[in-house]
Amino acid sequence: MPRIHILIAAIFLTLCCYSIPNAAFANEGMWQPQQLPEIATQLKAAGLELDPESLTDLTGFPMGAIVSLGGCTASFVSPQGLIATNHHCIYGSIQYNSTEDNNLLENGFLAQEFSKELQATPGSRVYVTEEIIEVTTAIIGGLNAGISGIERYKTIDRNSKAIVAECEQDKRYRCRVVNFHGGMEYYLFKQLMLRDVRLVYAPATSIGKFGGDIDNWMWPRHTGDFGFYRAYVGKDGEPADYSEDNIPYKPKNFLKVSAKSLKDGDYIMVLGYPGRTNRYRTSTEVKNQFTWSYPKSKVYFEEYINIIKSNSVAGSDVRIKYESTLAGLANVAKNYGSMMTSYHKGTTQQRKEQLEKDLSSWIKAKKSREKRYGNSLKQLDNLVLQSQKYQERNMLLGYIGRTTMLSTAYSLYKLANESQKTDLERDSGYQLRDIPRFGQRMKAIDRRFDSNIDKAVLQYFIQQYASIPQQQRVSSMDEFFAISKGFEESSLQTLLDEMFANTKLGDEETRLSWMEKSPADFEKSNDPFIQLAVATYKEREAIADQREALTGDIQAIRPKYMEALIAFYKDRGLPIYADANSTLRITYGNVKAYSPADGMRALPFTTLEGISAKHTGEDPFNSPVKQLELIKQQQYGKYLDTNLASVPVNYLGTLDVTGGNSGSPTLNSQAEFVGLLFDGVYESIIGDWDYDSELNRSISVDSRYMLWVMEYVDGAHKLLDEMVIVE
Amino acid sequence: MPRIHILIAAIFLTLCCYSIPNAAFANEGMWQPQQLPEIATQLKAAGLELDPESLTDLTGFPMGAIVSLGGCTASFVSPQGLIATNHHCIYGSIQYNSTEDNNLLENGFLAQEFSKELQATPGSRVYVTEEIIEVTTAIIGGLNAGISGIERYKTIDRNSKAIVAECEQDKRYRCRVVNFHGGMEYYLFKQLMLRDVRLVYAPATSIGKFGGDIDNWMWPRHTGDFGFYRAYVGKDGEPADYSEDNIPYKPKNFLKVSAKSLKDGDYIMVLGYPGRTNRYRTSTEVKNQFTWSYPKSKVYFEEYINIIKSNSVAGSDVRIKYESTLAGLANVAKNYGSMMTSYHKGTTQQRKEQLEKDLSSWIKAKKSREKRYGNSLKQLDNLVLQSQKYQERNMLLGYIGRTTMLSTAYSLYKLANESQKTDLERDSGYQLRDIPRFGQRMKAIDRRFDSNIDKAVLQYFIQQYASIPQQQRVSSMDEFFAISKGFEESSLQTLLDEMFANTKLGDEETRLSWMEKSPADFEKSNDPFIQLAVATYKEREAIADQREALTGDIQAIRPKYMEALIAFYKDRGLPIYADANSTLRITYGNVKAYSPADGMRALPFTTLEGISAKHTGEDPFNSPVKQLELIKQQQYGKYLDTNLASVPVNYLGTLDVTGGNSGSPTLNSQAEFVGLLFDGVYESIIGDWDYDSELNRSISVDSRYMLWVMEYVDGAHKLLDEMVIVE
Repeated sequence: MPRIHILIAAIFLTLCCYSIPNAAFANEGMWQPQQLPEIATQLKAAGLELDPESLTDLTGFPMGAIVSLGGCTASFVSPQGLIATNHHCIYGSIQYNSTEDNNLLENGFLAQEFSKELQATPGSRVYVTEEIIEVTTAIIGGLNAGISGIERYKTIDRNSKAIVAECEQDKRYRCRVVNFHGGMEYYLFKQLMLRDVRLVYAPATSIGKFGGDIDNWMWPRHTGDFGFYRAYVGKDGEPADYSEDNIPYKPKNFLKVSAKSLKDGDYIMVLGYPGRTNRYRTSTEVKNQFTWSYPKSKVYFEEYINIIKSNSVAGSDVRIKYESTLAGLANVAKNYGSMMTSYHKGTTQQRKEQLEKDLSSWIKAKKSREKRYGNSLKQLDNLVLQSQKYQERNMLLGYIGRTTMLSTAYSLYKLANESQKTDLERDSGYQLRDIPRFGQRMKAIDRRFDSNIDKAVLQYFIQQYASIPQQQRVSSMDEFFAISKGFEESSLQTLLDEMFANTKLGDEETRLSWMEKSPADFEKSNDPFIQLAVATYKEREAIADQREALTGDIQAIRPKYMEALIAFYKDRGLPIYADANSTLRITYGNVKAYSPADGMRALPFTTLEGISAKHTGEDPFNSPVKQLELIKQQQYGKYLDTNLASVPVNYLGTLDVTGGNSGSPTLNSQAEFVGLLFDGVYESIIGDWDYDSELNRSISVDSRYMLWVMEYVDGAHKLLDEMVIVE
Repeated sequence: MPRIHILIAAIFLTLCCYSIPNAAFANEGMWQPQQLPEIATQLKAAGLELDPESLTDLTGFPMGAIVSLGGCTASFVSPQGLIATNHHCIYGSIQYNSTEDNNLLENGFLAQEFSKELQATPGSRVYVTEEIIEVTTAIIGGLNAGISGIERYKTIDRNSKAIVAECEQDKRYRCRVVNFHGGMEYYLFKQLMLRDVRLVYAPATSIGKFGGDIDNWMWPRHTGDFGFYRAYVGKDGEPADYSEDNIPYKPKNFLKVSAKSLKDGDYIMVLGYPGRTNRYRTSTEVKNQFTWSYPKSKVYFEEYINIIKSNSVAGSDVRIKYESTLAGLANVAKNYGSMMTSYHKGTTQQRKEQLEKDLSSWIKAKKSREKRYGNSLKQLDNLVLQSQKYQERNMLLGYIGRTTMLSTAYSLYKLANESQKTDLERDSGYQLRDIPRFGQRMKAIDRRFDSNIDKAVLQYFIQQYASIPQQQRVSSMDEFFAISKGFEESSLQTLLDEMFANTKLGDEETRLSWMEKSPADFEKSNDPFIQLAVATYKEREAIADQREALTGDIQAIRPKYMEALIAFYKDRGLPIYADANSTLRITYGNVKAYSPADGMRALPFTTLEGISAKHTGEDPFNSPVKQLELIKQQQYGKYLDTNLASVPVNYLGTLDVTGGNSGSPTLNSQAEFVGLLFDGVYESIIGDWDYDSELNRSISVDSRYMLWVMEYVDGAHKLLDEMVIVE
C-alpha cells in the first residue's frame, strides 16, 4: 500500500521476512477474519454497527465483496462485477493501453459501454477468497524439532505444494499455503480466480495521481486515487480467459457507495490484503535493516532512477514504458528515507532491545519457562547473523538478475531444468500451475523494456558487484564478464553492447519458443544471455540451496521464539495479531487528525479548494481546467459537506495498513463504501516495523470526491447508475 | 523584521517606495502613536487593559522603553540600560567580536560582569524617540502645485535638511524628517542617540538562529532569536562615544518581563519601527514589482550567493566575513520567492485594479471630486512608467556600485566633491553630521570584505551590465572597462585582477586619509578604483539628477492621488494608517493559529520538545547538548505552561509587522514584555503589499523560552536578577 502495491515492493525487497506477532494497542492490528469475535468489544467501542461475527463470513456481506488483484486490494461495487480500486493499482493497465498518440494516462479513460472496455495488462487477475483452512498439522505435523536445514525447508515446501495441488484440482481456483507467526501456523487460502479483467474507467493522471511523487506519503493530500475494473466470466458464469463473448461476473456481494457525510471521529475500517509487516523482528534484524539494508538500497534505487531518466526523454515512448518502474523506485526510495529518519529520531531500536530484555527476564523467572523457551532468541540471532554474511553480494546478484534480458534468460533456463522434474518437485514459479502466468510475463516484457536502459542498469550493477571482495563473488560470473583478473569499465561496456546486439530475447516469439526447449538446447545456444544463464546456473543454484538450508534452520527456530513472545504477551493480557502476509485482514479505527510536528496539526479532511491552491499548471500539480472551473463555481452538488463548506477530497484515519492494502475500500460502521485507502502519511511509514498510535495515519480518497469527479468532471453517469449510492 | 532588519533590506532594495495609506480591517494597521485614541474602541475590544491615551506619550510608559537600533527595534528591560532585541539584530556585533579561535557566533557570549561587555560593531547606535513634530508646512508650505521636477525635489530636500540641522544643534540628538502618505505630510523625529553600545549576552547561534535559513519565515518555528545589548553614557549621564569610564544609561522607562502564561487568543501588541510597506501602490507599480523587479532581483541574489559560496570555504575566516551578507541575501531571495508565489496564486493584482476602477467611478460620480482629484492616478502612472524605462540599467549600476572597493572609491570621491559645498547644499550622507558614520563605515570594511569575492561579484555584474542595450549603458564606464567595442570575459578578468592587485583602498589608513583629500587629489590618483570613480562621476551624477527630477515630479503628484484615495476611504468610513516608513508605530492583535494550507493548521505555540524533534546534530538543527538534556529531563522550572505541558518556544500572532519590527518587544494587555517579535510566516510576506487577515501571522520568541534559556542553559543569573520578572 501507501503507493506501493506489493508487487512492486516485492520486486525490490531484499531477502528477509517470514513473520511474528505483536501486542495490540489503540487501533494497531491487522486482524484475521476469524479473530474478530475476540475483539468484538473494541470494535463496538470504536463504533462498528454490524455484528462482528458477520465479518467472519468470507462469502457473506461485506467480506465477499472484497477481492485481491494480486498486489492491491479492490472491491465489487455493482451487481455487474464493477470493481473499484486505486488509480495506482490500475496504472499498469492504463499504461499498457496508452500510446504516444493516445496517452490514456494523460487523458484518462472512460468506456462509454461495456464493449468499449479494454483488456487489462496481460496476467491481470481478480482473486476472490472463498475459504481459509488451517493446515498446520499437514505442513509441519510430521516434522520433529530436530529437523532443520534443507530437509525442513524441502519438507515444508513439498507439503505446501501437495496441498495447493490438491486444492487446485478445481481449475477455477488459485490456492496458497501461508505461514503465520514465523511458521507457527499454516493456512490454506482458496481463491476463485477471475481471468478476464478489463479497464472501465480511470480519471486523468492529473486527478488520479495529482501531487505525484512530491505529495506521495504526504499530508495535506488531494489525490483522486481511484479507478475501475470489471471482471468478466464465460457465458456459463465460470472463470474464463478473455473472450469477446464473455459476460460480466455477478458477485454474490457488492458494496453500496456512500454519498453521506463522514465526519471527524467516525468509525472506519479497511478489509484488504496487507502485504508484509515486520513487527516481531529481533533487535538484531531491525538494526541490520535500518543501518545497512535500507541505506544501501536507497542509494541503489536513486541511482537506478538516474539511469532511467538519463536514458529516456520525458514523454517519449521509452519513458512511458518505464513510468511505472520509476514510480515504484521513487516510492520505495522515499519510503526507506522516511523509515531511516523515523528510526534514527525515534526509540524503535531501544524499545526492541528493552522488549528482549523483558522477555528474557520473564523467561528466567520460571524454571518451566526456561526449559520450554530456552535461548531461542539467541539461536535465532545466530542464524540471522549468518544470513547477513553474504547480504551485499546477494543484494547485488538480485539487482543483476532482475534486469530484463538477464532475468528472462535466467527464468527460461530454470524452467527448462525444472521441467525435467515431477511437478511437485519443481521450485515455486515453475510448476505447471505457473506456466500460463510465466507465459504472460514473457509477453508483457516489450511494454516495459528498453534495450539501452536495461543495458545501462545491468552495467551499473555489475560494476558495483565487481567492487565486492573476490571471495564473495561468483566465479562463473566473474569469468563471463572477465572480472576475475580485474575490472575494466570499457571492456564491460563493449561486452554488454555485443550481448544486447546479439540477443534474440527481445523478441516475443523467440522468448515463447524457449519455453518449450530442453536444457540441452540452451547449452547449445549462442544467445549471449542464455550462455550467461547456463554458465552461472550451477553456482546460482548452489547459492539458492544454501539460502534454503538457512531458511529451513530459521523455520525451525523462529516459531519457538514466537511461541515465547506470544506467551509473554498473553501473560500480560494483550491480544495478538500476526504480521501481514498478503492474506485477508481487517483493520478498524476512526477518522482522526494528528500532529506531524510540534506546532502543527494535520486536519482530518482536505477539500476541493486545496486542489486549486496547489495547482501550478505543471505536472504533478496540473489539475484539469474543467475541474478548476467547477471548483471556482463551487459546483458541489449533493457532495457538499456542510462542516467543511466544500467537497472533501482525502481524509486521515488511524487504520493500521501497509502495501497491499492499496485499493481497499474504506468502510463506515455499516460497511458502506466511504472511500478508497491509498496511502499512509510520511511519519507512519516505519509502521511496517513499529506502530505509533500518535503518528500512524492512513489516507483515503473520500467517496464523495470520487462521485463528484465521476458526475461533474468525467460524466461517468452510466457507472453512477450502475452502482447503489446511499445518500 | 522577518529576518531582515531593514539595513540589510535597504542595501538590496531597488529604487522605489515613497509611501501611501490604506483602509484597515481586522488587525491590519501600523498606527502612529497619536492615532491610538482614534482606534481606542478596537484596542479595548482586542483586549488592551491600558488606557490607549497612555500609549501616545513618547517618553512615558511603555513608549519610552522602546528604542531603535537603526534597522531593528529594541527595548530597555532594566533600569541599567539593558536592551533586549533579536539575536539576528545583534548578529553583526557577535560576528564582529568573533575570531576563528573564539567564534562567538558558535559559542554564544555572556559577559559575567559589566566590564566584560564588548563593544558592538562600530557605528552601533541606540535611538530613543523623544519628540515627533509635524512639519508639513515648513517643508512644502511654500511650494505651489505647479512646482515639480528637480526644483521641487531640491526644495523639499533643502527644507528638510534645514529643519534637521536646527534640531541637531543639540549634539545629543539625531533628527529626521519623514514623509507620510507619499508626501502629503511631513514629520520631524527627534531621537536621543546613545553612541556607546555594548554586547552583553547572546545565546549560541544553535539557539539564536536554530533552524537557520531553512526555517526562516517558516512555521513551526523554534528559534531563540534574542540577545542583549547595553547602552552606556558619559559619567554626566549624557550620550558619549565609547570610553572605559562610561556608565550604564538609566532609561526613564523599562519593561517588566513576563514569566506568566500567555494563551491562545490573548491580546498582544508590538511597538516598533517597521521599515517599509507598499500598501498604497498603484496597480502599474505592483505589476512591475512582481513581474519584473522581484523575479529579476531574485535571480541576481541567488547568483550572488553562489559566488560567495564558491569563493569561500565554510567555516573559514573569509566565510565568516560574509556570513551576514549571505544571510541577508538568502533571506531576501526567499522573501521575494514567497511574494511572487503569493502574487501569482492570489488576487492582489485584480483587487488593486478593481480598487482603482472603484476609485475612478467614485471620483466621476461628483463634479466636485472630479475637479479636485482629477486624473492624478493617470499622471502618477505616467511618471511610474517613465521611471521604469531605465530600471534594468539602474538595478545593475546599483549592484556594481555596491561592491566594496568600488563603493568605497565612489563614496570617497563623492565626499571630496560634496565637501566643496556648504553643509546644507550637500547630498544626504555627505553632510557634516554624516562624517563620523562615514568614517566608521570606512573602518568596518575589513571585517566584511574579501578581495577575491568582491572581484568575482563585480565581474559578474559587469558582465550582466555589458549585455544590456548600448544606448542604456554609461559610456564612461563602457570605456573604462573596454566594453564599447564588444565585451570579452577574459579581458575583463585581466583588468579586474590588475585593479584589485593595485588598489590601496583595501587598507584602512589609506581609506581614512582619502576622506581628507580634494577632488584634485583624486583626479591625480593612480589607484584604479579611484580612477574609475573619477572617470564615471559626471555621468553617474547626471543619472542621479534625472532620478531626482523624476522623484520631484512624483512628489508633486502622489500626494494628490493619496488625497483622493484617503477621501474615498473616508467616505466609506474606514480608518487610515500610513505606510511604514521606519517611524515608531504600534500594531495590536492576538495570539492566533492559522491555516497555511488546506488540511493543515498551524498551532499558536511551539514547545521545547519540538527542538529535540528537529535536532539532527547538523547546522542549522544542532541544538546544544545541554539544552537537549534539559528538555529530556523535562526541566521546565517555573516556565512550564500547563496547557502545553512544556515551555513555549515561539508563538503566532495577528500583528501587522514588517522589516524593522525585528527585535520589537511583544507586549501583553498590560504592556509587559511577553516576547520578541522576530519574523512572519511565509504566507504573510506579501503583506508588505497586501495584508490578508487569514494568512498574516507574526512570530515571536516567547519570553518564557528566553528566560528558560537564560536560567538553565546559559546561567545568565545576573541578568535575570537585573530585570524585573513578573510571575
